[in-house]
Amino acid sequence: MIVILKNNPEKRQLENLIQWLKSMNLDVHISVGAAHMILGLIGDTSSVDIDLIRALDIVEDVKRIQEPYKNANRKFHPDDTVIELENHVKIGDGSMQIFAGPCSVESRDQICFIAKSVKESGATILRGGAFKPRTSPYAFQGLGGQGIDLLLEAKKETGLPIVTEIMNITQLPLFEEIDIIQIGARNMQNFELLKEMGRSGKPVLLKRGLANTLEEFLMSAEYIMASGNEKVILCERGIRTFETATRNTLDLSAVPLLKQMSHLPVIVDPSHATGLSKLVKPMAMAAVACGVDGLMIEVHNDPPHALSDGKQSLTPEAFRDVSACVRQLAPLAFHW
Amino acid sequence: MIVILKNNPEKRQLENLIQWLKSMNLDVHISVGAAHMILGLIGDTSSVDIDLIRALDIVEDVKRIQEPYKNANRKFHPDDTVIELENHVKIGDGSMQIFAGPCSVESRDQICFIAKSVKESGATILRGGAFKPRTSPYAFQGLGGQGIDLLLEAKKETGLPIVTEIMNITQLPLFEEIDIIQIGARNMQNFELLKEMGRSGKPVLLKRGLANTLEEFLMSAEYIMASGNEKVILCERGIRTFETATRNTLDLSAVPLLKQMSHLPVIVDPSHATGLSKLVKPMAMAAVACGVDGLMIEVHNDPPHALSDGKQSLTPEAFRDVSACVRQLAPLAFHW
Amino acid sequence: MIVILKNNPEKRQLENLIQWLKSMNLDVHISVGAAHMILGLIGDTSSVDIDLIRALDIVEDVKRIQEPYKNANRKFHPDDTVIELENHVKIGDGSMQIFAGPCSVESRDQICFIAKSVKESGATILRGGAFKPRTSPYAFQGLGGQGIDLLLEAKKETGLPIVTEIMNITQLPLFEEIDIIQIGARNMQNFELLKEMGRSGKPVLLKRGLANTLEEFLMSAEYIMASGNEKVILCERGIRTFETATRNTLDLSAVPLLKQMSHLPVIVDPSHATGLSKLVKPMAMAAVACGVDGLMIEVHNDPPHALSDGKQSLTPEAFRDVSACVRQLAPLAFHW
Amino acid sequence: MIVILKNNPEKRQLENLIQWLKSMNLDVHISVGAAHMILGLIGDTSSVDIDLIRALDIVEDVKRIQEPYKNANRKFHPDDTVIELENHVKIGDGSMQIFAGPCSVESRDQICFIAKSVKESGATILRGGAFKPRTSPYAFQGLGGQGIDLLLEAKKETGLPIVTEIMNITQLPLFEEIDIIQIGARNMQNFELLKEMGRSGKPVLLKRGLANTLEEFLMSAEYIMASGNEKVILCERGIRTFETATRNTLDLSAVPLLKQMSHLPVIVDPSHATGLSKLVKPMAMAAVACGVDGLMIEVHNDPPHALSDGKQSLTPEAFRDVSACVRQLAPLAFHW
Repeated sequence: MIVILKNNPEKRQLENLIQWLKSMNLDVHISVGAAHMILGLIGDTSSVDIDLIRALDIVEDVKRIQEPYKNANRKFHPDDTVIELENHVKIGDGSMQIFAGPCSVESRDQICFIAKSVKESGATILRGGAFKPRTSPYAFQGLGGQGIDLLLEAKKETGLPIVTEIMNITQLPLFEEIDIIQIGARNMQNFELLKEMGRSGKPVLLKRGLANTLEEFLMSAEYIMASGNEKVILCERGIRTFETATRNTLDLSAVPLLKQMSHLPVIVDPSHATGLSKLVKPMAMAAVACGVDGLMIEVHNDPPHALSDGKQSLTPEAFRDVSACVRQLAPLAFHW
Repeated sequence: MIVILKNNPEKRQLENLIQWLKSMNLDVHISVGAAHMILGLIGDTSSVDIDLIRALDIVEDVKRIQEPYKNANRKFHPDDTVIELENHVKIGDGSMQIFAGPCSVESRDQICFIAKSVKESGATILRGGAFKPRTSPYAFQGLGGQGIDLLLEAKKETGLPIVTEIMNITQLPLFEEIDIIQIGARNMQNFELLKEMGRSGKPVLLKRGLANTLEEFLMSAEYIMASGNEKVILCERGIRTFETATRNTLDLSAVPLLKQMSHLPVIVDPSHATGLSKLVKPMAMAAVACGVDGLMIEVHNDPPHALSDGKQSLTPEAFRDVSACVRQLAPLAFHW
Repeated sequence: MIVILKNNPEKRQLENLIQWLKSMNLDVHISVGAAHMILGLIGDTSSVDIDLIRALDIVEDVKRIQEPYKNANRKFHPDDTVIELENHVKIGDGSMQIFAGPCSVESRDQICFIAKSVKESGATILRGGAFKPRTSPYAFQGLGGQGIDLLLEAKKETGLPIVTEIMNITQLPLFEEIDIIQIGARNMQNFELLKEMGRSGKPVLLKRGLANTLEEFLMSAEYIMASGNEKVILCERGIRTFETATRNTLDLSAVPLLKQMSHLPVIVDPSHATGLSKLVKPMAMAAVACGVDGLMIEVHNDPPHALSDGKQSLTPEAFRDVSACVRQLAPLAFHW
Repeated sequence: MIVILKNNPEKRQLENLIQWLKSMNLDVHISVGAAHMILGLIGDTSSVDIDLIRALDIVEDVKRIQEPYKNANRKFHPDDTVIELENHVKIGDGSMQIFAGPCSVESRDQICFIAKSVKESGATILRGGAFKPRTSPYAFQGLGGQGIDLLLEAKKETGLPIVTEIMNITQLPLFEEIDIIQIGARNMQNFELLKEMGRSGKPVLLKRGLANTLEEFLMSAEYIMASGNEKVILCERGIRTFETATRNTLDLSAVPLLKQMSHLPVIVDPSHATGLSKLVKPMAMAAVACGVDGLMIEVHNDPPHALSDGKQSLTPEAFRDVSACVRQLAPLAFHW
């Protein structure tokens, strides 16, 4: 971390600053230039509050050189993190994992039918919402605990591992047998929930918030990891911009950037990102081409009657086509 | 709600749609135009899932005419909601309430000193963070329950009602004696927490999310109100844009718009919105001029050593000046 | 176009409105529903000012059903537009065109060296800036007319067609022998320049503005086409968002959407979009996978000493690799 | 400017860099810290291309300490710039100037009627569009040169100075007798037009682009000033965000920030910023409260039939009220 001081800093304030920095176990190297004095801070600066230093009267600016995340940082963990699930499914090892299923679990028949169908078409993980975050209190909020039970029945029938979303710490006991716990975009900075995920030790699929930078995204992964759980999967699912033709703007450059910044696996959800079923295939292919470890795709047997997000779901037939094309592209993309 | 159908809709699908709409207790009025058939839906459409209808093959588009919020809607509650606190402080009755205090509670001395100081300068409510949402897991996370106790001591010494932030349902028992519970921007769509706030019956200060529209903001208020609690205060605190000169972009047009859309009181937090202490005064004055019911201002006795957000805090002296200017402008603004 | 009227519209105002609409050669079909009267407008509504109608006291809202662009609209021109250049290069016919070259033309040696190099590696069109739009008046503004001459020499040596940017109508005479005239992102809504491009009859490469919607983008293409020139190539080059890790956010969902909305060819510029050379390859591959007709890539023989935008340029070696991978993927992507 | 080098920079590259920096007349001060070598550049760095240095292999990051604008910078011109027009109207001297008039000039009667009306109500400058930038090529494009003539007639009748927008260099001869030339938001980075404005010597009203930062805004002012014209008025008119309830988001914190960064006068256009007539008054009052030098307000005698932007225009009666309230607030705000 480099602290650039204003011209002629007041001496007592400077001494106070240096003493305070040293009290945080940092070495302070002073460089006196012609116009500016510069402090170089050596040591673990990840816990230093940059805004606090910047607020000081004698400070012109502060520049972080180390990233503020450690556990999630590729610099300190050069090897890719690989997360292995029950049925030997591995995420992050160069294989392509397809998470597919309906937005909401609606009934036993529905979830089991879709689970079998997507498995036949090449999906390796079943997704489905039991607790649904909805903008309106009057919209369908999911089947809750019953939805979890139905997902586990579909797992028993197909052997597919399950990913489903948690919305509150108090729901955690219901997730005992779930393979991957999803933290939705709106909860990306629900820090209490993140800490609890850290303690749970289960694989966590963390979705990027609608208006969060990649650094903030990795800081949220850091919350989970700092609480003791290294099994975090990052999911880009679109950010909010001025464009209204798509629900969100899928930020695909996040994929190679996250892979460079971090060792964690990265997947993309083209269904939620675009909100339009006709864009799911081209965006899935684009995501694979730029190096993603997996895709999360909404599939519904009867999209026009889905209880939520029907507009963006694929039919099982459309999904089979996407899956086949993804399977054709993935091994090529791995070698680029 | 108006459903615009595509040309020549398939007959069976049309019948299915109409039947489904009627099953939601809606009257369906069919208007056949030259190019388009239009369905007018009469009844309570607030629980109709607009995306679901839009997803149907035969539907060109759907247009909501009623707003999706009812309890928060001024159309159905023309009179301003006024929230009265213990010491006769009223929010929303045309008076100007100033919420002031430090970002974080740090010690008994600190919070009591600031409480007395801001009360003398004209503040009517004391703010202070006990549980702090921080981007980094390594940054100071607040004093927690001890912070709540210190706030209550400051209340006892000064008589000022207290507002402080909750981050999780499990913290609720600690908030028994708190006057106003704050829901932070990152939790604006933490729907489980909102429902719990509805059940608590306590005044809630709801901050707008960084990337949320005003309609979404009111839908979150609706969550609280639909769960039985009408005492919601809306707080604009800046939205995220491409501009980097300020931390966020304060959206002041939200103030008159929210007052037109809803009957709930609206306040502004210029400290968090701008992130720069030198902008707090001009933005506070602007907020008052456009009709706000209150202001939330960070004040710290020693900004450069504040444990969080020091960059945006005012000194007690600077606050006294802002408060005096606000008191001069508020009665004028009330009559414009 | 559908005009939704407020309840009980004032009769004289309604008659005025209907008369005014008819004066624009529109048929007006009135549908009286239970709660709302609706006017269906039949005819060419592309020249109707939707904001003007929306501003009327008696109007609740207006909904466009036809898109406001005609010449650029795929509905009226189902076949892909193919633009053929001098040396049989065709853009939009299912082949993949690679536009490569330096950000700025710097010298005869530089541009000829790069031109030969990128041609050998598979580029089909040479790009290079002679007039450079720079944020700072003190930054290098390009070689101007001399730069154009050098580009034409490189064309003579290699046979590659040339694309270069125009910044003002008065520069047009210098572009006589240029194959494709580029309109930069900052000039996407320089309507006088667009009209002049329409009159010029030359192929135009139109870049999307930093904060423009796809509809606005197509309206700018419409300006050129309405002035008589159908040869427009659309180029997505990143939009401005809150994310700071990349210069802009590449909006790849724009590619399939533009192809669905319009018949015009669509290319992507991953160099300007990301601003980071290490992201050029993955984003190029992603663009090809989602159906782009071409790529625009910055190549410089000595990136660290380039006079502008060195940070995002590829070396000739890196470009050879990208080009080879693109050539591998493009024929596959064409069949997805 | 401070250049932070990576660890152990390659020696030859370092020497090349230092030599190149010195060739730009900069003194280079080397500070060797424990982890990083830092170069402090002393001299006029406003013309140094920061991206170019950042692109170098051995450079970790570059930090500008001086702002990249000189002429527009308050540091070098502490006194407020005051622009005086013909009839003794002064902009930037602490008085409040109200620019009012229709979006488009439509006829002699219309413009003269409005001019007289707004003058009586307290406007000091007449605005009106002759050349109109419209998103659609099929929308009304303004009366052009005839519109300019009508504005000059209104000036003769009322004595009000005129501001109107230029869209292209070739229109300049028509602006001979115009008092203030307006550069619209879409042309904020039309650099050729800015340079020409610099040469014209006339007062220029420069509107902020929809997606431009304040630094870019001042750089565009710098283009005009570097070409020899100091008479620049900055106008905030809303930026583009995700919010759809208003046309744009008025960024009022730009007002005090621009006044701190620069010595140029700053005005606000609440009509275009919000796009809603009902928000014009509260936003006008807010702008005055935070220290603006003037307001630009759309007024039309018959808003529902205005040929452009009727939705955001005030009636003459509504304008009289706004103007009176502004006149009440302005002298107070001047002393805050």
